[in-house]
Amino acid sequence: MVTRPTTWIPAAKGDRLQDVDTPALILDLDRFETNLARMRAAAASFQVRLRPHAKSHKCVEIARRQIAAGAIGICCQKVGEAEVFVNAGIGDVLITNEVVGERKLQRLVQLARHHPNARLGVCVDNVQTARRLGALCMAQQARLDVYVDLDVGQNRTGVATPQEAVELARTVVACPRLTFMGLHAYAGNAQHRRGVPERRAAVEAATRKAAETRAALRAADLPCEVITGGGTGTFIYEAGSQIFSEIQPGSYVLMDVDYARNEQDQNAPRFEHALFILATVMSQRGDRATLDAGLKAFSTDAGLPAPTFTGWQVWSVSDEHTVLQRTGDGPSIKLGDKALLVPSHCDPTVNLHEWIVAVRKGAVEAVWPIDARGAFF
Amino acid sequence: MVTRPTTWIPAAKGDRLQDVDTPALILDLDRFETNLARMRAAAASFQVRLRPHAKSHKCVEIARRQIAAGAIGICCQKVGEAEVFVNAGIGDVLITNEVVGERKLQRLVQLARHHPNARLGVCVDNVQTARRLGALCMAQQARLDVYVDLDVGQNRTGVATPQEAVELARTVVACPRLTFMGLHAYAGNAQHRRGVPERRAAVEAATRKAAETRAALRAADLPCEVITGGGTGTFIYEAGSQIFSEIQPGSYVLMDVDYARNEQDQNAPRFEHALFILATVMSQRGDRATLDAGLKAFSTDAGLPAPTFTGWQVWSVSDEHTVLQRTGDGPSIKLGDKALLVPSHCDPTVNLHEWIVAVRKGAVEAVWPIDARGAFF
Repeated sequence: MVTRPTTWIPAAKGDRLQDVDTPALILDLDRFETNLARMRAAAASFQVRLRPHAKSHKCVEIARRQIAAGAIGICCQKVGEAEVFVNAGIGDVLITNEVVGERKLQRLVQLARHHPNARLGVCVDNVQTARRLGALCMAQQARLDVYVDLDVGQNRTGVATPQEAVELARTVVACPRLTFMGLHAYAGNAQHRRGVPERRAAVEAATRKAAETRAALRAADLPCEVITGGGTGTFIYEAGSQIFSEIQPGSYVLMDVDYARNEQDQNAPRFEHALFILATVMSQRGDRATLDAGLKAFSTDAGLPAPTFTGWQVWSVSDEHTVLQRTGDGPSIKLGDKALLVPSHCDPTVNLHEWIVAVRKGAVEAVWPIDARGAFF
Repeated sequence: MVTRPTTWIPAAKGDRLQDVDTPALILDLDRFETNLARMRAAAASFQVRLRPHAKSHKCVEIARRQIAAGAIGICCQKVGEAEVFVNAGIGDVLITNEVVGERKLQRLVQLARHHPNARLGVCVDNVQTARRLGALCMAQQARLDVYVDLDVGQNRTGVATPQEAVELARTVVACPRLTFMGLHAYAGNAQHRRGVPERRAAVEAATRKAAETRAALRAADLPCEVITGGGTGTFIYEAGSQIFSEIQPGSYVLMDVDYARNEQDQNAPRFEHALFILATVMSQRGDRATLDAGLKAFSTDAGLPAPTFTGWQVWSVSDEHTVLQRTGDGPSIKLGDKALLVPSHCDPTVNLHEWIVAVRKGAVEAVWPIDARGAFF
């Protein structure tokens, strides 16, 4: 293990928000806790298991609080993330993704071996990887939960047909140290369709395919205990489907500009923006204010970040700068002022930071490491 | 100081490229050295000082090789970056940016105090910060080079007029422990104008303004030893202007898709793509191949990354995946294959990685840390 120094922590407990060094990732604890409670209530009302996706926050402390608020465990996308969370004591982790490559498979099986009391799951969409996982688990005396990844419309990963799912599940069941759990059926293509009818229709199609695949598995005497899927944009449809037994929303706990652009379903809980970028005005002239945060402090793949105040808009973004331009009535801004922006896409934004500063009513309550930052292996 | 573990290094010396774990940042050493040599020759032919921008690579080893190839030192954008490079022994570092906020100013002055034999420079665009820097240097018995940042068209930072530059330079000169060096006149707005005439015209305007400001400084008996500016897209114009004495290109050494889209000036050296993202095919079906690298392994602010092979194009990118679609004749791709992509924008892409794998003729020659990764303070 190599250790690398971290020499700059943006804040300490008790600091005022305006004294936090910048750029910094800010978590509004009141809003965060509201989001936790609303998702807990929604999952309970639908009687589905809640397994939030930790790829959005990559933070052990946030995962612990999600579990304290009713989650049965977490999801992640990478073996490197699973290592961080399982080693930190999170006892139920599902990698909602394929793991390919001998080195990664070995690391995954070693993680399972070192934590025999943890539940560790992974998705497969090909027979070759399933067999290799089975052989490694035999050799290491390790055990893994395995889900067949079903493509329900995203055209990214997953098997295409119920017949392929049956064949793959048979391969898994044939490995004594792999437990076939069921189907991973995530409609990633549906999450950001803006209209409610479009999102609902995409999930209905995904649900039909998952139900048809479950029927094919049962007809082949293969158990299908769990069907897991559903993100922040659609989870109420999966949860209400009677087919999905588990939902895996991630962004709900932080919320970003991109999800807020979706038309809100009247039956869905409302989530609050709890994540912000704090930046300092480092240059100011006339109607222009330049902030000390840019592409290395937030992502722009889903558009520009949004100021939390009126009368100013983002005019340009570069690697280390964001230029705000006055567009109407709003606060006057001077050199050294601090500004809060709502990120357009929380997942790749959080990944840029080493720390998240948890704030309540203008005071820093804690500074948590983004433990799995950069764990993209 | 907090240390954080790094548990995953993608390669070791002697590995073959196809065995490097993914996602990984790959540096083609032959092309990198070609780029170093061509920039050295260009700077020599124009008789300007070469101070490459290290915000593009954030890597001490690359900075050392740039200096071995004729650079007088490096630029960076942040105090956190300056700390990394100066502490690693780089003896001449210019922060081409304003530093605002008491904590950052103190860190900067402490760095200068701890390295009295290093040259450490910083830009200012307001009197308030210049005075505070002067006072802190007096208190700490430290010394700093100071450049007045002149806005030459980017409308991001910098003073607007020669008169403001004179006033600010007077403030700097009045501080005994600050050395007024001259002007920072970076035409960031010109770097990616696609046509040669537009880029040249933008730099001519910047050069006129810099010359006018130097004349105003000289008329006020203020020295103006250095005028520094010029990026990868325009440096031959600054270098040939007889006004700029120093150029500060960054991306030339790695090159990305965005700079390659510029119309090439016949008088400019040609730089080769030396930076790549290596990814593994983690799912494959029909004409679709899904790679294990996404928004957490490369940035898309300047567009999608480009495959290095024909017949396939990037169809979609998400946080941890890139989906390639076959569009014509090209290699067949199967599960577990490795693919190289050219990033669209090197600076924010490099910042996502902890390591850069230096490869020559298909074999790993070294693995270097991205030392200043995440140093955005």
